[in-house]
Amino acid sequence: MEAEKAFEKGEVPIGAVVVYGGKIIARAHNLREERNDPTAHAEILAIQEAAQNIKSWRLKGAAMYVTLEPCPMCAGALVQARIDTLVFGAWDGKAGAAGTLLDITNFPGFNHQLKVFGGVMEQECQEIMRRFFSRLRRN
Amino acid sequence: MEAEKAFEKGEVPIGAVVVYGGKIIARAHNLREERNDPTAHAEILAIQEAAQNIKSWRLKGAAMYVTLEPCPMCAGALVQARIDTLVFGAWDGKAGAAGTLLDITNFPGFNHQLKVFGGVMEQECQEIMRRFFSRLRRN
Repeated sequence: MEAEKAFEKGEVPIGAVVVYGGKIIARAHNLREERNDPTAHAEILAIQEAAQNIKSWRLKGAAMYVTLEPCPMCAGALVQARIDTLVFGAWDGKAGAAGTLLDITNFPGFNHQLKVFGGVMEQECQEIMRRFFSRLRRN
Repeated sequence: MEAEKAFEKGEVPIGAVVVYGGKIIARAHNLREERNDPTAHAEILAIQEAAQNIKSWRLKGAAMYVTLEPCPMCAGALVQARIDTLVFGAWDGKAGAAGTLLDITNFPGFNHQLKVFGGVMEQECQEIMRRFFSRLRRN
């Protein structure tokens, strides 16, 4: 649903939620164009909202669900936030940093590693991206 | 000066500026504790301010100057923002992602690479970190 909101705004359709204590505490979608902000990816916005909600930058015990494999910036933010678990939909051959091009979520040298589950609802998550870029090419 | 502002607030003392068209268009320092925001690193805040100033998420032609080698999140943000040049002070053996632990600023698979100059005013930039952590241990 968050990815669909981005789609309707003409943003690359990526959505993310943060779950903590059995509840969704943050929902966000990509707003890079609307905000003119290269950091306004769904994951960054969701992490910021989640941290405000629990009043701590440490999101230990939290899980992020996102429609696309995170880029290096977002994978790095998950490590910074000490998030426990990452679940994502489609793999990203162009910038994926949770296993595809490199793996920032499980880098032995860093002070935090995540449990990662990729390819969950992969078809649906790929499909919205395919729809978006096919519309973009038509226009 | 930005790193000193962070130091005085009890934040890990890291400061960054963005230069564009021969002028400093953004200045920021680490505000992770004050804002309870794991993404509020100096580089992220400086990129956000710079993008607002030029009203574009593409910071092509810009240079970032930062006191410490960026972490994966911040190095990824520099790539996302298409910043041309990164100049940093101290190398970071714990999380450096511009050459030390890994190199996100010059990763062949990504769609953008930066010119990187590390170790500029290295002594001064190391010294403020050393002062901060030695004070932290004393308290």
